[in-house]
Amino acid sequence: MVDCCPCFGGSQNGREEEMRPLIGTSRRHDNVSLPRKDYESLDYDRCYNTPYADYVEKQTKDHSVAKLEAIKWIVTFFVGYLTGMVALFIDSIVKLLTRLKFSAVDDSIRSCSEDGCLILSLLIMLCFNVGFVIIASSLVILEPIAGGSGIPEIKCYLNGVKVPRVGRLRTLVSKSVGVLFSVAGGLFVGKEGPMIHSGAIIGAGVPQFQSIAFKAINFKYSFFRTDREKRDFVSGGAAAGVAAAFGAPIGGVLFSLEEGCSFWNQKLTWRTFFCSMAATYSLNFFLSGIGSDEWGYFYLPGLINFGVFKYQGQHLWNAMDLLVFLAIGFLGGIFGAAFNAINKRLTIHRMSHVNKKHKVIRLLEAGLVAAVTTTIAFIGAMLVGECRPIPKSELINGTDTAVRTYFCDKGEYNDMATLFFNSQEEAIKQLFHQEGKFSLATLGIFFIVFFFLACWTYGVHVPSGLFVPSLLCGAAYGRFVATLLVNYIGYDKSIYSGTFALIGAAAFLGGVVRMTISLTVILIESTNEISYGLPLMLVLMVAKWSGDLFNEGLYDIHIKLRGVPVARMGSSTWNGENEGKRHNGEVT
Amino acid sequence: MVDCCPCFGGSQNGREEEMRPLIGTSRRHDNVSLPRKDYESLDYDRCYNTPYADYVEKQTKDHSVAKLEAIKWIVTFFVGYLTGMVALFIDSIVKLLTRLKFSAVDDSIRSCSEDGCLILSLLIMLCFNVGFVIIASSLVILEPIAGGSGIPEIKCYLNGVKVPRVGRLRTLVSKSVGVLFSVAGGLFVGKEGPMIHSGAIIGAGVPQFQSIAFKAINFKYSFFRTDREKRDFVSGGAAAGVAAAFGAPIGGVLFSLEEGCSFWNQKLTWRTFFCSMAATYSLNFFLSGIGSDEWGYFYLPGLINFGVFKYQGQHLWNAMDLLVFLAIGFLGGIFGAAFNAINKRLTIHRMSHVNKKHKVIRLLEAGLVAAVTTTIAFIGAMLVGECRPIPKSELINGTDTAVRTYFCDKGEYNDMATLFFNSQEEAIKQLFHQEGKFSLATLGIFFIVFFFLACWTYGVHVPSGLFVPSLLCGAAYGRFVATLLVNYIGYDKSIYSGTFALIGAAAFLGGVVRMTISLTVILIESTNEISYGLPLMLVLMVAKWSGDLFNEGLYDIHIKLRGVPVARMGSSTWNGENEGKRHNGEVT
Repeated sequence: MVDCCPCFGGSQNGREEEMRPLIGTSRRHDNVSLPRKDYESLDYDRCYNTPYADYVEKQTKDHSVAKLEAIKWIVTFFVGYLTGMVALFIDSIVKLLTRLKFSAVDDSIRSCSEDGCLILSLLIMLCFNVGFVIIASSLVILEPIAGGSGIPEIKCYLNGVKVPRVGRLRTLVSKSVGVLFSVAGGLFVGKEGPMIHSGAIIGAGVPQFQSIAFKAINFKYSFFRTDREKRDFVSGGAAAGVAAAFGAPIGGVLFSLEEGCSFWNQKLTWRTFFCSMAATYSLNFFLSGIGSDEWGYFYLPGLINFGVFKYQGQHLWNAMDLLVFLAIGFLGGIFGAAFNAINKRLTIHRMSHVNKKHKVIRLLEAGLVAAVTTTIAFIGAMLVGECRPIPKSELINGTDTAVRTYFCDKGEYNDMATLFFNSQEEAIKQLFHQEGKFSLATLGIFFIVFFFLACWTYGVHVPSGLFVPSLLCGAAYGRFVATLLVNYIGYDKSIYSGTFALIGAAAFLGGVVRMTISLTVILIESTNEISYGLPLMLVLMVAKWSGDLFNEGLYDIHIKLRGVPVARMGSSTWNGENEGKRHNGEVT
Repeated sequence: MVDCCPCFGGSQNGREEEMRPLIGTSRRHDNVSLPRKDYESLDYDRCYNTPYADYVEKQTKDHSVAKLEAIKWIVTFFVGYLTGMVALFIDSIVKLLTRLKFSAVDDSIRSCSEDGCLILSLLIMLCFNVGFVIIASSLVILEPIAGGSGIPEIKCYLNGVKVPRVGRLRTLVSKSVGVLFSVAGGLFVGKEGPMIHSGAIIGAGVPQFQSIAFKAINFKYSFFRTDREKRDFVSGGAAAGVAAAFGAPIGGVLFSLEEGCSFWNQKLTWRTFFCSMAATYSLNFFLSGIGSDEWGYFYLPGLINFGVFKYQGQHLWNAMDLLVFLAIGFLGGIFGAAFNAINKRLTIHRMSHVNKKHKVIRLLEAGLVAAVTTTIAFIGAMLVGECRPIPKSELINGTDTAVRTYFCDKGEYNDMATLFFNSQEEAIKQLFHQEGKFSLATLGIFFIVFFFLACWTYGVHVPSGLFVPSLLCGAAYGRFVATLLVNYIGYDKSIYSGTFALIGAAAFLGGVVRMTISLTVILIESTNEISYGLPLMLVLMVAKWSGDLFNEGLYDIHIKLRGVPVARMGSSTWNGENEGKRHNGEVT
């Protein structure tokens, strides 16, 4: 309905910095593959010409604009609501599958610890994990675009490049079902990325009340069919995905704002916020209701709950610690850059050897990763894990205690097993809080093993998020630093090592994805501790800066490797180099 | 350095919605005064032509862009830091002056309560208040632009209209000193608006290391002289002002984003966030240090501290309450619209009768308002105030208890006096929490009296913010509703009436200023209670909607009345009417 007149050619978009992405990229990145012709560009510009003016004038008069606007808000609500429900579905099924798996494994380990048939327990675990992962992988083979985290695709879409099949119902199904199994399969992957992608797909699909899968259902508001309208709903859906995953509605909005920065307008902010809120609180409502059988209350904001950061009334951090945090951030950025560099090589290798032509190899690789991950975790826990007395707080919980007692005497827990065999969220929680204690060796080895395995895993053909694994990896790193400082360097003993773990997590994740304000806010919201604002911001800043010295964020790397014709996103950079680059991009 | 070529004519700005403000306005608002010729328009566009490209290319090569970028960040830090310091200055002096005043008044009231010479106490209070307000007003007469809250001016500036003298050092001084006295003078004004304005002035001045007042000092980075650069720092400073005032760094960023929505880019978000953080935490650092003599810790986020919302482990709100909240929001929007309508008439009257020509009348009006406010508060507390036993929590505090015991027997406090004679922040705190109890009559009368006095006060020629008075007025309204529901309608007795007060505050403030996401986030941050996200958002949404049925936000009204040639800000509207209007604006 709205065709854009060439005279405006892209000059109206929301960010000066991201103009003319195509030219920008091709000039800027030497190693970029040539744009593939199956990518179409989306048209987000409005054309203000007399016919359109009259059209709007007319609509304004007979108030059909008002109606349409009202409908927009209702649809936005449903986008948020459904995203919340998908998140709820993923979360509960993952929990179910994991419980199923561990109920079997726990028994066998308990009995085998005496009879010394632990190899059997390992085999049982292998069957579960490899089986799950194979299912996940085969779903991705049916719908290749469902692999990976999906955030790169969303980034492309929001910045005006249509990646084929990215918004299909089929993609949604294989993504959301696939991620269940890849997570339940004990891979070092998160479910956040896929949730965000799911949200975006819902945002793309719902406003049209139809999907290519079900052509029958149709919807008369052709208005929502313009790329522009669709994009608005997609950014809403993506924000809702973040909001549901982390219980961070504000962070969700800023995520869409930061990732989809090429096009934005003021009203979109508010509607996106509404969408995130709808997702957060519909999820919250059901989680709280199911959790307590007392409906109508809201106390479980998101799927990730880092627990309350409190430390016997003492301060969580002070000005002195800030200096350490900066160092952690700097190093975290370098670790992140290393992660990206390794993963980039791997991806290039995969593109030539494990591509669409080699479906079986893809399956096998996924299975292999699962097997190796499981075995290493199992053996690591057996050999390296230290047995420590179970803290009282855990004993109170009774049965479903978070610490794992494998290979230990009664009343003791295995610190390595606690990290490897819990859900990653639970492991992060353990690292973020004082109760669980971990030896330096455990933390160090865990970090290294996890680093490489996660790096290998991202890019395997299963739906796989990057957020939570990076957080866990970084949390181990931060906790390692804290333990080192206190026990071996004689740093102030009263520090709250949970804070250091959080800072480490932020530093590593920041070094990998190079997100700035949205990541800060997401972490503030999901820790529900506003006083962490300053340290988190500084650390993410330093991490991004030190990382940018070596390479780009992982999402941008993957976007480029696929030859998607989109410019480097204008995620804010404090060093002028990219500024300059961007200028080139603009003025070329 | 960068002149914009006409070919781009404003088409690059960050928001499609706000293009061509001038045409937009004049077409849209029938009662708008004609643009006055002393307003200049600012040029925020970059021109991408070959010479500029070469210039950037060159700069990129010899890394001077990197240097410049680094300097930008350092300067940004100082903008934030200084804003924090100004906030600290204002806050501490206000506290000082108020303590001075009440030490005298308290004694006289205590003695006179027996001897029945209360008229004397009233006179003492009058001397103080009228005196203070006269000082404030005379400062404004020296520098007229320092009157009012300053937010309309900032809005204009950020959207590309240069209001004369708005960024001068002289304005900063008379604004920040003036607001001390207008607040200490017991007027129903807040110090937040002026703080935001001060922040913006600092942002405009510091990057140039010079002010028109001190021509001697000069600074070689002519780069920061472009309107574009200056605007970036101004939005940073404004955000820092919000951040310092409310301890809401994220809210600050969103404030700048929402108010200055015509021009924005991705990098600006991150730098603005950095600026707000600098302000929040430098203020926090000193407040905490001074407060506890234990330096290096951060536990007093902002000047406004609404205290911790906790209710004997019970829920703060539930799904049922949401319906009541919506009603409160709807009514609050109408109250806000009424406030705006009355204030608009008043302002029009003032423009013709109390303008620059009538300096003395201005002084007298300010003095009159002070006198009337004081007298009404005093008599109201004496006649209407109810004496109630002082809650234990207050007794523990001992000397500097928040409740006022005027005209009451020992161990009792006067609820009306507690609202009138505390700092407004303290009064809000009382209303937001369960301890202080207030009779229905007190709340009702207080709301009505405060409503009209605040409405009369806004526009008097003193520096005067609008945020906190509106919050207080709304809090009384919300608390009134809660008391009514529980005691007279038999609503669930276990509700936390503090939540209702908060919702009422949000509803009324939202109805007056019509801000959306930034206000939501500011309130979430300053209550430090993320679980209030949904109710606050819904209420602000409904309030804005019901208010928009009648008139615009107060800031927009004042902007228009002054004939500033700027379009209605693109603050998100959920009803399509304005959307339509805006189209007109765009396509005219």
